Amino acid sequence: MTVIVLRLGHRIFRDQRITSHCALVSRAFGADGFIYSGEKDKGMEDSVKKVARQWGGKFKVKYTQKWKNIIREWKGRTVHLTVYGMPLESKTKELRSEKNLLIIVGGEKVPPEVYKSVDLNISVTNQPHSEIAALSMLLDRYFDGTEFRKTFPGAKLKAVPQERGKKVIRL
Amino acid sequence: MTVIVLRLGHRIFRDQRITSHCALVSRAFGADGFIYSGEKDKGMEDSVKKVARQWGGKFKVKYTQKWKNIIREWKGRTVHLTVYGMPLESKTKELRSEKNLLIIVGGEKVPPEVYKSVDLNISVTNQPHSEIAALSMLLDRYFDGTEFRKTFPGAKLKAVPQERGKKVIRL
Repeated sequence: MTVIVLRLGHRIFRDQRITSHCALVSRAFGADGFIYSGEKDKGMEDSVKKVARQWGGKFKVKYTQKWKNIIREWKGRTVHLTVYGMPLESKTKELRSEKNLLIIVGGEKVPPEVYKSVDLNISVTNQPHSEIAALSMLLDRYFDGTEFRKTFPGAKLKAVPQERGKKVIRL
Repeated sequence: MTVIVLRLGHRIFRDQRITSHCALVSRAFGADGFIYSGEKDKGMEDSVKKVARQWGGKFKVKYTQKWKNIIREWKGRTVHLTVYGMPLESKTKELRSEKNLLIIVGGEKVPPEVYKSVDLNISVTNQPHSEIAALSMLLDRYFDGTEFRKTFPGAKLKAVPQERGKKVIRL
């Protein structure tokens, strides 16, 4: 079972935090890795890798210019998140039947060929909001809430749930 | 039933897109309004209001400097989203029993008094990721998926779900 998130068209100045949130959500909600295209952004990559190193798990981050090949050669289902797609709730069953998922998160301008070449175009609410929220919802529905029980082997930091205040332990 | 999202400590330069995503997620996932503190940001406000005007519904956006009063005077439960809080899944039932929810989304530095003064500190996964994703998950669990069937009266634009491509109708 492999779930990878592919973020298209990253722009350093405008998207740095949005893309890094997408990557961190991918990790926290159970994806195995994050690939991004557009402008290479060492600062963004390093910040995500640092979180992955400190908080555990085997999450990988990679940059590519060949995103078309990644979509074309994917062994499993390819899913594009877009406000214009089919409702998530109508496709959840189909998604869950697939072991290997490539989730494509667009940037400012998504080429029409993405809509055509993927297996599914999926929308979360069909309202304009956030690729970060859409991604978290898709992963939640795919993993059916089990992402909340995911463990992160090798973690150096762990937040211990508190009713009040903050508690982080070093392992 | 009233659900308001309160975003603390907005900074124009660094947070513009993050805060606007929080506001748009609030709207799309069923909240009634969005209040933010920190730096007043007319550009961010206008962009969210424009979406609300075009895509319908009665979503309100407001700026405040008196966020402490808003928390103190809230009639209903106050919930703070934080990586350090109690797991969302352990508090879902309690949340759903409450008709009026104030959801507090922190900025860079959340004053300790926020942790102390709210009814619930809640975390989504206890891993570092994104306030936008955490907010969408909290609203999803609170509304139990009914947010996907929410209608937006008075909409001028509507996305019509498509297997391929984009279709937006003007009403």
